[in-house]
Amino acid sequence: MSAHFKLEREGAVAVVRLDRPERKNPFTFQSYAALRDWFRDLAADEEIHAVVIAPNGRNFSSGGDVEDIIGPLTEMDMKGLLAFTRMTGDLVKAMLTCGKPIVAAVDGVAVGAGAILAMASDIRLATPEAKTAFLFNRVGLAGCDMGACAMLPRIIGQGRAAELLYTGRVMSAEEGAAWGFYNRLVGGHEIEAEALKLASRIAAGPRFANMMTKTMLLQEWDMGLERAIEAEAQAQAICMQTEDFRRAYRAFMAREKPVFEGD
Amino acid sequence: MSAHFKLEREGAVAVVRLDRPERKNPFTFQSYAALRDWFRDLAADEEIHAVVIAPNGRNFSSGGDVEDIIGPLTEMDMKGLLAFTRMTGDLVKAMLTCGKPIVAAVDGVAVGAGAILAMASDIRLATPEAKTAFLFNRVGLAGCDMGACAMLPRIIGQGRAAELLYTGRVMSAEEGAAWGFYNRLVGGHEIEAEALKLASRIAAGPRFANMMTKTMLLQEWDMGLERAIEAEAQAQAICMQTEDFRRAYRAFMAREKPVFEGD
Amino acid sequence: MSAHFKLEREGAVAVVRLDRPERKNPFTFQSYAALRDWFRDLAADEEIHAVVIAPNGRNFSSGGDVEDIIGPLTEMDMKGLLAFTRMTGDLVKAMLTCGKPIVAAVDGVAVGAGAILAMASDIRLATPEAKTAFLFNRVGLAGCDMGACAMLPRIIGQGRAAELLYTGRVMSAEEGAAWGFYNRLVGGHEIEAEALKLASRIAAGPRFANMMTKTMLLQEWDMGLERAIEAEAQAQAICMQTEDFRRAYRAFMAREKPVFEGD
Repeated sequence: MSAHFKLEREGAVAVVRLDRPERKNPFTFQSYAALRDWFRDLAADEEIHAVVIAPNGRNFSSGGDVEDIIGPLTEMDMKGLLAFTRMTGDLVKAMLTCGKPIVAAVDGVAVGAGAILAMASDIRLATPEAKTAFLFNRVGLAGCDMGACAMLPRIIGQGRAAELLYTGRVMSAEEGAAWGFYNRLVGGHEIEAEALKLASRIAAGPRFANMMTKTMLLQEWDMGLERAIEAEAQAQAICMQTEDFRRAYRAFMAREKPVFEGD
Repeated sequence: MSAHFKLEREGAVAVVRLDRPERKNPFTFQSYAALRDWFRDLAADEEIHAVVIAPNGRNFSSGGDVEDIIGPLTEMDMKGLLAFTRMTGDLVKAMLTCGKPIVAAVDGVAVGAGAILAMASDIRLATPEAKTAFLFNRVGLAGCDMGACAMLPRIIGQGRAAELLYTGRVMSAEEGAAWGFYNRLVGGHEIEAEALKLASRIAAGPRFANMMTKTMLLQEWDMGLERAIEAEAQAQAICMQTEDFRRAYRAFMAREKPVFEGD
Repeated sequence: MSAHFKLEREGAVAVVRLDRPERKNPFTFQSYAALRDWFRDLAADEEIHAVVIAPNGRNFSSGGDVEDIIGPLTEMDMKGLLAFTRMTGDLVKAMLTCGKPIVAAVDGVAVGAGAILAMASDIRLATPEAKTAFLFNRVGLAGCDMGACAMLPRIIGQGRAAELLYTGRVMSAEEGAAWGFYNRLVGGHEIEAEALKLASRIAAGPRFANMMTKTMLLQEWDMGLERAIEAEAQAQAICMQTEDFRRAYRAFMAREKPVFEGD
């Protein structure tokens, strides 16, 4: 638990949200680090099988706070700057390697590091009011922040990503849904419940296998296709030795719904 | 020819389909192997220049049969499991390296390995009734099956692929067309004829060059962009020494339609 | 300046266009080389911060001229052919490494190398009349030309790219916009002004950081995701030592619009 973000639990799903709604939930140095540490610890957590990143006060996150973060950064030396950019990158790495599917529920403002937090999730829902901006170039920086030049093109295509990164403009919720950034749009009153429902459904699935899916999506990112197919042959053979695979088979034969237990 | 799939020929196009329509065309151990071997042999076939994978009885394929395949897998040791997953992966590798463009014509059920069969094709048509599901996690397995974690994100985007792989849910035909999984939708009565028309058009093209296109789409999968450009410079220079290149030039100058002969 | 293309300047934006409108602006051996050299020199140009590639006489480019280029190529030896394909590839490499965002404004015909010229730009606008075709296989060649098998799949998805490359068919403006090849469509009378407006807006941004965005989009093309995140941590830390970063911060605190100077 942390003063810098709010953590709740709904069954096997952790619901996490930045917790300064009066300022649209900016990141601070402390909340970057706390969230990074929480995702790192999550990898070994046997109770949580999926994560929802939720909005707070009708906004997702306004990103790195101008006064709390940008100000100090303008006075830092290179050692300090690199320590900071690596810490923010480590948050994304921790999300990618935590082994649990992450569903982002985006409402209102999701800009800068807030947009990255959505991007680094596995699945993204949004409300029609979601305003998403990779606005780094508007604060004098490059679009290459926390993995954006690598991940965004693979989600929405190279051309659309280039426009967003070179202009810093807002991607509307409709654009986000049409382009595949958002999996679908949900009304503001339902988005958190919908995200929780989706995450709960995934958490009730074969979680060892889901961890392997997440692992392989990362492993195969830059792998040749023939090597990727061999890597999947090995990964799937491992999953075929789980009890969950047998449980699904027995349930099917008994015309029942499988109950997965994660081993 | 094989008892496990049905093979027809229309000019220079091979039309192949799984052949147990009463069970929605599941794979068996034998049909995986037979289809893999057929695609391997196809690489050296001088008569066939394109392939259509067709539905049968209004369904494409229900994937690995639960009784015939899943059951035995639940009792296999690791050596046997890896031999199986490699065999299924080898089918995809054989499709990728056969040197002939493959058009999938998807109708009805295309799930599990059936969805993969469509995914590993080059171009995909579908009927509005097509129901496509990468349902591995519903049988207790991971989404990393036969290359899905590598290929599906490149076809429909990383976010949409993640949702399909973590939930195993059906992708509707409309979604498939909007997302670029399906190149277009065609009515159930016309789909096979449309796929054959498209494949025939491609087969009538410069087939040495088409083989090179297919080769380079695979080669450049994980290549840096500058190296890819050099690789294409070499590959295209090779194609510029074919007679088909000269045939096209002469036809253009004579205001005729080129007749390609593949050398 | 060159006889083979037309070069104008609007503030910090260079507007370049092929200049044989009566023949729909084909490439010649000379214009390939001249444009390649111009983009190479651009990397060191301190005055130009963005580029527009504009149409001419309501067409973008008809690609390599059949009489001027294809004819001679049919009689060349391998040494000459490779020198040619490398020269055309070097044009794309020069565009990718020039350090300035490129906006293509596509009207009318954009085929063959003309389609590549659009593809290798960062952002693409088009008119509803734009007809874009990667028509290489219709002249007996492979789709692997000037990077198309690498870049096109990342812009519009692997399946759609495969269809265009195997058939050589025209992609309509509507398809291009729906698939993310075109960022948006603009009427024929406004397209050049719109492209210039967008390029001018980007040119007024933090150009050192924009150069870094362009560099990293290329660097990370085939990089593993975790290495990409570290690469971005370094690249962004560099950008945080620019004056433009401080200018943006000071402007924000003073509630003013930042004026970037590129250092």
